[in-house]
Amino acid sequence: MKIAIRKAKKDDMTAVLNLIKELAVFENEPDAVEISVTDLEHDGFKESPSFECFVAEVENKIVGIALVYMRYSTWKGPVLHLEDLIVSQNMRGKNIGTLLLDEVVKHGNQLGVKRIGWDVLDWNEEAIAFYEKKGAHVMRDWDIVQLDEKGIKAYLSKL
Amino acid sequence: MKIAIRKAKKDDMTAVLNLIKELAVFENEPDAVEISVTDLEHDGFKESPSFECFVAEVENKIVGIALVYMRYSTWKGPVLHLEDLIVSQNMRGKNIGTLLLDEVVKHGNQLGVKRIGWDVLDWNEEAIAFYEKKGAHVMRDWDIVQLDEKGIKAYLSKL
Repeated sequence: MKIAIRKAKKDDMTAVLNLIKELAVFENEPDAVEISVTDLEHDGFKESPSFECFVAEVENKIVGIALVYMRYSTWKGPVLHLEDLIVSQNMRGKNIGTLLLDEVVKHGNQLGVKRIGWDVLDWNEEAIAFYEKKGAHVMRDWDIVQLDEKGIKAYLSKL
Repeated sequence: MKIAIRKAKKDDMTAVLNLIKELAVFENEPDAVEISVTDLEHDGFKESPSFECFVAEVENKIVGIALVYMRYSTWKGPVLHLEDLIVSQNMRGKNIGTLLLDEVVKHGNQLGVKRIGWDVLDWNEEAIAFYEKKGAHVMRDWDIVQLDEKGIKAYLSKL
């Protein structure tokens, strides 16, 4: 089986969104995806793109993605963030995730960042084992905090 | 006591770095701060700045900061990330953190983001209680993964 890893193009965004939605189902949040193909086509390909995306292709079909962007650490300076690493359910266990992560690490190294980071669900032991095997450090004492759209409005109404 | 909240200027970066270092000590990582004042002055004030910073001033002394930048959610699109919310140890309990967070939420609302997010140490119960009181959702089932500079080099050496 030949797996090709390449930078995503604008007209890959339909396939990319399908994989994003597949992951949302896996994470028990099927209705959380509010983004559209048009959004991804705009945000990823405007003058200062909001993200960069790599895709894994098998027989001309996109079966995996790695979506990254820059963040800023007040300890390390610019760092690369891996927002999503997705391999389609029926294509797992074929080394595709590894090849995508390889590309992300190469990309981070080219950018000269001092760190590449991402988030993981603490019950996703398979993913955690994979990342630790790759030499990443899983920081289990950190949690994520979110104030959503409704929360922002409610917050402001009390000021 | 008069607390003034304003956008940070380039020549505030020395005070900003001092607060970053103070937080690193609190988080038991005093040696982790590799960034310099020059880095902050460059990265925060170049043409497309890597971050925006708000400062809290009391009697012309900077006693707190909120440092933010944009991230990209594949579910919600552009979102605002609060990298650091720091109030100097001896100035806590004076509402300064609240005023800084107010400013961040107003800023996120002006930007039209669907979410404002940040990370918190799970043992920092005081901070968690503060955020939850403000309507934020603490997602305790997420962990942070990091591949540091040494990890990046080790990873690449095995490819």
